[in-house]
Amino acid sequence: MEIQFLGTGAGQPSKQRNVASLALKLLDELNEIWLFDVGEATQHQILRTNIRLRKVTKIFVSHNHGDHIFGLPGLLATRSFQGDVGPITIYGPAGLEQYVRTALKVSKTKVSYPIKFIELTGDALIYKGQGFKVYTKKLDHRVASYGFRVEEESRPGELLVDKLAQYHIPNGPIYGKLKAGEKVELEDGNIIDGKDFLGPERPGRIVSIIYDTRSTPAIAELSKNADVLVHESTFGGNEAKLAYSYYHSTCVQAATVARDNGVGMLYLDHISARYLGNDAKKLERQAQKVFENTRLANDFDYMVIPMKGSEK
Amino acid sequence: MEIQFLGTGAGQPSKQRNVASLALKLLDELNEIWLFDVGEATQHQILRTNIRLRKVTKIFVSHNHGDHIFGLPGLLATRSFQGDVGPITIYGPAGLEQYVRTALKVSKTKVSYPIKFIELTGDALIYKGQGFKVYTKKLDHRVASYGFRVEEESRPGELLVDKLAQYHIPNGPIYGKLKAGEKVELEDGNIIDGKDFLGPERPGRIVSIIYDTRSTPAIAELSKNADVLVHESTFGGNEAKLAYSYYHSTCVQAATVARDNGVGMLYLDHISARYLGNDAKKLERQAQKVFENTRLANDFDYMVIPMKGSEK
Ligand SMILES: [Zn+2]
Ligand SMILES: [Zn+2]
Repeated sequence: MEIQFLGTGAGQPSKQRNVASLALKLLDELNEIWLFDVGEATQHQILRTNIRLRKVTKIFVSHNHGDHIFGLPGLLATRSFQGDVGPITIYGPAGLEQYVRTALKVSKTKVSYPIKFIELTGDALIYKGQGFKVYTKKLDHRVASYGFRVEEESRPGELLVDKLAQYHIPNGPIYGKLKAGEKVELEDGNIIDGKDFLGPERPGRIVSIIYDTRSTPAIAELSKNADVLVHESTFGGNEAKLAYSYYHSTCVQAATVARDNGVGMLYLDHISARYLGNDAKKLERQAQKVFENTRLANDFDYMVIPMKGSEK
Repeated sequence: MEIQFLGTGAGQPSKQRNVASLALKLLDELNEIWLFDVGEATQHQILRTNIRLRKVTKIFVSHNHGDHIFGLPGLLATRSFQGDVGPITIYGPAGLEQYVRTALKVSKTKVSYPIKFIELTGDALIYKGQGFKVYTKKLDHRVASYGFRVEEESRPGELLVDKLAQYHIPNGPIYGKLKAGEKVELEDGNIIDGKDFLGPERPGRIVSIIYDTRSTPAIAELSKNADVLVHESTFGGNEAKLAYSYYHSTCVQAATVARDNGVGMLYLDHISARYLGNDAKKLERQAQKVFENTRLANDFDYMVIPMKGSEK
């Protein structure tokens, strides 16, 4: 499980940051990549990564502002040029489907694969399958805007090989059955239970993605115990009033949510072009005073999210 | 009068070429810039030039394929962020307005200036004013596609200062009147005619822009005596059959039009991603065998179009 930022800017592209998009890479887990928001030129950013559009199977769209959706028609069209592409599902607010369908219709784009739209309406479990759940909650923006929480299901504990050796249980095909938690009869007639030879269940990872919103209680609910929280940070720590009036958040509000909800790592995203270079670093420092594990996200930044309890 | 290529690729963006767009800079003439086609990320390309979106007053769209229009909503939205922007006029095929209006409506983009759409329908003079005329003709593409011919009106000849000196006419305010071709009474009562002291009328410049099309007679008509012809060149010289079946042109077809119609300079544009580096140069060499003044257009290439008869 990996995250790569494709655009970390706000409102309009700058030379430093493209408009919003990030990729949740589930290649080891599902051989799939999920995108969150698709600002203009997201496909151009992807050209500079190792992401193949064929692998993008789901797109989640937080809200319909142009800097979050104007890259969608072009990305869908280009995905069509790749051979043997499967269906794609797009989760987004009302109106998104009309926008995409109109763009494809007017441009006479024949997409070579099925596109399914799922309209976000309120707080809901919007996807469950393949060992993952995705929840949304409505946030507080000028237009309907949704936050996302991706939960990986917990996995069975690891097989305790040392303990098996203590019991003189020889390596072989029965290891597979024990690992699956099954009961197995040994050659001497004894029956052993795989569950006795498994370490503790390993909790799945949690990623929370909060694009455009004012500070609002739904964010804490989506972020509870997240391994990684990606949170918009359109304004500086001392601009809470401005953030409120523009329906956005400050870096300190993001850090406060992270600190109060057992978050592992916070990434500040959706950085205004008013914060260039060192000024953007200032947002990071302000947030770190509240929550140390904060990083400023930059375009193409890349992180691996390790399983809980595994070596980092 | 200058041209800058913003995207010289075809179909989808590549690392080398963005999708279609070019700027006709009329800064000295009108303090305006006109765009021809607006593929996705045209505004991103513009970030890397000295073009200010405020100066873009007209956008001409050849046809509605995605690689020619998907940058339009984002560019219009970003133009809005610049202070004190005037109206913009968009010339394009039926359907373009619906696409743009839907994108702006769904994204709740409030554009700060009026947008006027003028629908292209057939062969027509679509603009006349400020010393310029723009003509369109329908080309032969899979969807309705239009070529453009921009004609600058001819300008009066230069004032022949040496001749005035021969006639002992002193420099002064009357020079302005003579330059305007007026009659002037001198102090000695003699009347002289400005027209006798003007050099030959200087013909205006002509720029022809031919995006996606098969070889078709309308191209010659649009290109007659053009100073600069920008012509799509999606296929190589020996792929005329392929070009025909995909409704595109070859580099040699472009060069033949240029040779047979008194064109000054030909730029090969709309280069397929199949032609990388040296292969693209091959298109140029093939065309140069037919018409020597051919150049392969690359993103950000820039050329000044001098007045006819002026020093180059
Ligand atoms: Zn935004
Ligand atoms: Zn094209």
